[in-house]
Amino acid sequence: MTLVANMEPCFLTATEAAKLMRAGKLSVEEMAKSTLARVEARDDAVKGWAYFDKELVLQRAKELDSVPLNKRGPLFGVPVAVKDVIYTRDMPTQHNSPIYEGHAPEIDAACIMTLRAAGALIFGKAQTTEFAATTRSTPARNPYDSNRTPGGSSSGSGAVVGDFQSAIGLGTQTIGSTIRPGSFNNIFAMKPTWNAISREGLKMLAASLDTLGLYGRSADDLDLLCDVFHIQDDEPPVNKPIHELTIAVCKSPIWKDASNVTSSLAQVWTQAIGLLEQAGVKVVELELPTEFDGVFDASRNIMWTEARSAFLNDYLNSPDKCHDDFKSHVENRRNLSRKDQLAAYDLIGRLKPIFDDIASEYDAILTPSTTGEAPAGLESTGSAIFCGTWTGLQVPVINVPGFAGENGMPIGLSLVTGRYKDRKLVAVAKQVAKVFHQAHGGKIKSLPGVPSALL
Amino acid sequence: MTLVANMEPCFLTATEAAKLMRAGKLSVEEMAKSTLARVEARDDAVKGWAYFDKELVLQRAKELDSVPLNKRGPLFGVPVAVKDVIYTRDMPTQHNSPIYEGHAPEIDAACIMTLRAAGALIFGKAQTTEFAATTRSTPARNPYDSNRTPGGSSSGSGAVVGDFQSAIGLGTQTIGSTIRPGSFNNIFAMKPTWNAISREGLKMLAASLDTLGLYGRSADDLDLLCDVFHIQDDEPPVNKPIHELTIAVCKSPIWKDASNVTSSLAQVWTQAIGLLEQAGVKVVELELPTEFDGVFDASRNIMWTEARSAFLNDYLNSPDKCHDDFKSHVENRRNLSRKDQLAAYDLIGRLKPIFDDIASEYDAILTPSTTGEAPAGLESTGSAIFCGTWTGLQVPVINVPGFAGENGMPIGLSLVTGRYKDRKLVAVAKQVAKVFHQAHGGKIKSLPGVPSALL
Repeated sequence: MTLVANMEPCFLTATEAAKLMRAGKLSVEEMAKSTLARVEARDDAVKGWAYFDKELVLQRAKELDSVPLNKRGPLFGVPVAVKDVIYTRDMPTQHNSPIYEGHAPEIDAACIMTLRAAGALIFGKAQTTEFAATTRSTPARNPYDSNRTPGGSSSGSGAVVGDFQSAIGLGTQTIGSTIRPGSFNNIFAMKPTWNAISREGLKMLAASLDTLGLYGRSADDLDLLCDVFHIQDDEPPVNKPIHELTIAVCKSPIWKDASNVTSSLAQVWTQAIGLLEQAGVKVVELELPTEFDGVFDASRNIMWTEARSAFLNDYLNSPDKCHDDFKSHVENRRNLSRKDQLAAYDLIGRLKPIFDDIASEYDAILTPSTTGEAPAGLESTGSAIFCGTWTGLQVPVINVPGFAGENGMPIGLSLVTGRYKDRKLVAVAKQVAKVFHQAHGGKIKSLPGVPSALL
Repeated sequence: MTLVANMEPCFLTATEAAKLMRAGKLSVEEMAKSTLARVEARDDAVKGWAYFDKELVLQRAKELDSVPLNKRGPLFGVPVAVKDVIYTRDMPTQHNSPIYEGHAPEIDAACIMTLRAAGALIFGKAQTTEFAATTRSTPARNPYDSNRTPGGSSSGSGAVVGDFQSAIGLGTQTIGSTIRPGSFNNIFAMKPTWNAISREGLKMLAASLDTLGLYGRSADDLDLLCDVFHIQDDEPPVNKPIHELTIAVCKSPIWKDASNVTSSLAQVWTQAIGLLEQAGVKVVELELPTEFDGVFDASRNIMWTEARSAFLNDYLNSPDKCHDDFKSHVENRRNLSRKDQLAAYDLIGRLKPIFDDIASEYDAILTPSTTGEAPAGLESTGSAIFCGTWTGLQVPVINVPGFAGENGMPIGLSLVTGRYKDRKLVAVAKQVAKVFHQAHGGKIKSLPGVPSALL
């Protein structure tokens, strides 16, 4: 087996692996076999896959190996774990719902077509909470502690990328479903600007919020994915050195409620600011105007009211298999009026340009990804409370990993900026990632079989 | 054959036909056969279907006839023509694109699932311009004059419902793709509030604008469809008699450019106001504040910039079959910046609540549906210029037919109101429809084989 610096291919980042495979220095079959071996070794502990067909993966890998070097796309041969609310023509798409058990229409979501065009190896379907909502949990476990949740709703994608069972993962986010698992599983997670990537072929929950989410194990991987999805700012980002950055630190309106802040988060927060200042970053405290206090509730109201139309078809066709939570949305049991719904839209509609203006004064805004470490147990997937404000504002968010909480579980922090400054945000994340990576210094738990330098 | 007042079943409205079929007084097979006979007689002239399987229709009709009376849904047995950008599990979905020729994934769009649950008979796939955009026209012709366009992009759905080849039709609207064919084909057309009906399973063009459109041959049919799709205002509409209505007549900013107003439109406009006043309606002139002048351009900029992500997958996978217009979107050849895109969002975001407030002062706002009669030729599908403002504002719009232009071609006018007042708008449309129906008084062309009282 071709090894790079004695590294098992499954431990390579997408960027590193693609470079080797595009150059013919690593075969896709070798990459696939190494990653399959990791799946075999770890699936019992992590249980991140909803559907997996080893033979199909190997067959596709061989097909890719026959592509001539000059026709190999930017993600050539890179394994991608696909959240099971995203349609794939060669694997079932079951949404973790009894309604869609065995459902396998031969259709690819737009994002899957784009990934295939880039040469990616669609690796398997990853566990999701039912319909990417909070209901019906999954068997997926946190790779760092199988008694803890990997987060949700993109539970499997976060877990398998965190566990080196796939280089890249696709999630979705309606409130905090991509960023939270990013933090819990020690990986880079990106929720791009709303609709910067087509959401065609993703199960809908809330049309104004749903966004495809991206997972990788380096900031470079996010850059590569942004290239693949043609995400472009008006101007290419300037790659400033770390000491020229100005970063606003924003506890956000959510921090005002002390119950949202664990001691692990408080410690990591202080640590992060110290590290940034030490690296020469100009750190500025940012408190958002009080009118932003209502954005989280507005976002949640939008989700609940948009879910009213999103689940009508399942409600009518499968009354027996439709979980009561979705029935509750369709029947509007929360009694949210259209007036409430419109007030939520219009509050956020008014604040979006105001936030863009605020964000434009900084290279990025640092803010919590979630309340702390992944909680114990598999019932709850943890809290999305710190994420909803940004999802509502439709702005790009990146979870940068690097920290450990009191129990040695991973914690990341989010970088946020204004709409359609995605590439600028990735450029800043690359710099900040280096600083944060020094942070855990062996405090983070080990992952079985993984060299600790990789964590 | 069971006949109602000697009427061929295909000439019944959806509301009339459903009532008979639910009660077992008309079989679905009879309904289907009558409608199939109409298709057979007229398809050569109208060419509205993209896919049609007579045997499948008859088989489904027989299956429906075996449903017991107490399990028959609100749309039981009613034929539905489905625009061919909407996925159906038992018929191909080809988008009028060479990329998707023969494409037949076994998946239903959310709206199709909801219609099936209501007992509808999915009748066939109707012609669409390529991907519901303006490019690549269709063979569909206007039933009133086969040398004229039925409009677009929902060309086939408008034409076959107008020609009595289907009781109900589904279209989509991104700028004016549902309302324009409604006007040209002498039928009721409704673009509900954005996202009031799930758009899952519709090909995407512009996520902020795309809306499922509804066609029927009576205002009652729109009411029935709103029931089926659980579209609800905060309060049930009050059914005011016509002489208690206050209707604002709004030429809209588009009328300021005289080239948008044909003499047929100008005549119909005056005629409509006269008829409303004669019926005792309080008619008020409404001029929107000047900041609304920019909404049409903003809507179009949103369409063009959102299309940038919508067609990336086809652009990358099918460079040879992807029409240059879609390549142009992906490559952003119009050089629209993200700043332009955000300015468009934020202008409309600010004006939405302002428009809702203005609209709340009237029972409805009357405004042109399009520039006049369906133009001659099949290349152009006519103008969407009068529609874009309302689609951008995401408000409900109903085309009420009834008028004839200088060449005897049908013309309808639009009723508009604020977001999520859809049911109120349908209630007003019912009243206004009666008034407008007196208008054409035999001036409208005849349709071969159709009793003139029905037009």
